[in-house]
Amino acid sequence: MAKTYPPPLQPDLAVAIITRFLQEELQKTGFGRFVVGLSGGVDSALSCALAVRAVGPERVLAVKMPYRLSDPRSERDAGTVAALLGVAADRVDISPMVDAYFAEEAEAPPLRRGNFMARVRMAVLFDRSAREKALVLGTSNKTELLLGYGTWYGDMASSLNPIGDLYKSHVWQLGAHLGLPREILEKPPSADLWQGQTDEGELGLTYAEADAVLYLLVDERHTVEEAAEATGFPLSRVQSILARVEASQFKRRLPVIPKLTHRTVGIDFRYPRDWGR
Amino acid sequence: MAKTYPPPLQPDLAVAIITRFLQEELQKTGFGRFVVGLSGGVDSALSCALAVRAVGPERVLAVKMPYRLSDPRSERDAGTVAALLGVAADRVDISPMVDAYFAEEAEAPPLRRGNFMARVRMAVLFDRSAREKALVLGTSNKTELLLGYGTWYGDMASSLNPIGDLYKSHVWQLGAHLGLPREILEKPPSADLWQGQTDEGELGLTYAEADAVLYLLVDERHTVEEAAEATGFPLSRVQSILARVEASQFKRRLPVIPKLTHRTVGIDFRYPRDWGR
Repeated sequence: MAKTYPPPLQPDLAVAIITRFLQEELQKTGFGRFVVGLSGGVDSALSCALAVRAVGPERVLAVKMPYRLSDPRSERDAGTVAALLGVAADRVDISPMVDAYFAEEAEAPPLRRGNFMARVRMAVLFDRSAREKALVLGTSNKTELLLGYGTWYGDMASSLNPIGDLYKSHVWQLGAHLGLPREILEKPPSADLWQGQTDEGELGLTYAEADAVLYLLVDERHTVEEAAEATGFPLSRVQSILARVEASQFKRRLPVIPKLTHRTVGIDFRYPRDWGR
Repeated sequence: MAKTYPPPLQPDLAVAIITRFLQEELQKTGFGRFVVGLSGGVDSALSCALAVRAVGPERVLAVKMPYRLSDPRSERDAGTVAALLGVAADRVDISPMVDAYFAEEAEAPPLRRGNFMARVRMAVLFDRSAREKALVLGTSNKTELLLGYGTWYGDMASSLNPIGDLYKSHVWQLGAHLGLPREILEKPPSADLWQGQTDEGELGLTYAEADAVLYLLVDERHTVEEAAEATGFPLSRVQSILARVEASQFKRRLPVIPKLTHRTVGIDFRYPRDWGR
């Protein structure tokens, strides 16, 4: 590729927009703090770092939620990030909750287990949210959201998502800009839902490929043919990325409701969430 | 009140619209079945009954998910509904999962416990969804959705919600029309999250009041003054219902994302979920 897709962000401007957004949301909701699950990866580290920039470390609570088969380096890296940013970090071992369920579902494959874990972690974060009067920060980047690479009502669920409009390459760029540790920035992205899992291995494509194609299709509204030509990727590869976006659209919507009355939630009753304030 | 708000549905038409919707969604997604959590209450019983009407009992799986402090009548009533409709019913005791978490959070009040339970039940239903290739049916009616009387990412989360545009009075009407048992139709609505809980006691208003005011404000777009006059309720009562709707709008939206690129998930990237098929 001669050109870089997507183009890099202007990092100071992006940080300013996101931190202002975080400050305003806290003020509008009347909540005092943010809570974020730190996985040891770069996405949650960046969400946390942006929140610390916005409101200071004493108003951000991190939660480490290891499972007994998680890579111990994940928890160690999460602790490094929390210490670096100066935020308090709780620890909740989700193993008893997860194992209690799968004791009766022993044949469940890793994907089902991973999705269950992501939902248990969401439940823990929202309980922390209630306990601490804290908004739950999302940690899904735009690449993951568009590919549907995340658990619906699990890690894709949050109160608000500061990094949801950042491609993975933007996450790395802003992470470096904000001084996240090199080991966090350079480790292969992984949901750590099972041993040896990497995002790129599981997706069957690199983030560089995904970012370039998604940017051209979604933001620049190019056709698959144009995106293939601009990137030099085979057409079939571009088509398979588009197919992923289409097939995962349900994860980016509210539950569908059949319309029976004049105004229906999610169809034609859709105010902004600060409606009336 | 001289007039009834909301007006009753034409029950055969409503059932036809909802069952067609359920059939089409199953076909579009390529899933073979529905899964629904049966609480013993009328909402989940109606969702289940509509699914059975749409695709037959052998393609509907019910799940009973008692907690050790749940009223035993809830599980008994859920079993009655499953038997009446001829659907298979799994049973998952959520106590070990819930108790494992709250062992470390012993001071948590009932509301936090209830929300955690609702989220664990959601996680169980979506695991069943993956196991059975079944879509998760929502069980939140329009009155609950508008009042925000439910758990975000818990019972408010589903694949699709057949009763989401039915006011509570419509739920009772269609439930009777479809022959649900009298004890299900006549029991006081309760989330059964703690002993003696009733919806109307916790909300501080009756469903008859809520339905009438919500219908006039939301569907008929009346002002609070007009709604107070039409119903005969004090203005302050109508205002407090509107305040509930406004304050719970966040539960009827996707997580907010700050916009940084040309097209942002949930803002200006919002295709229908069957986009591209």
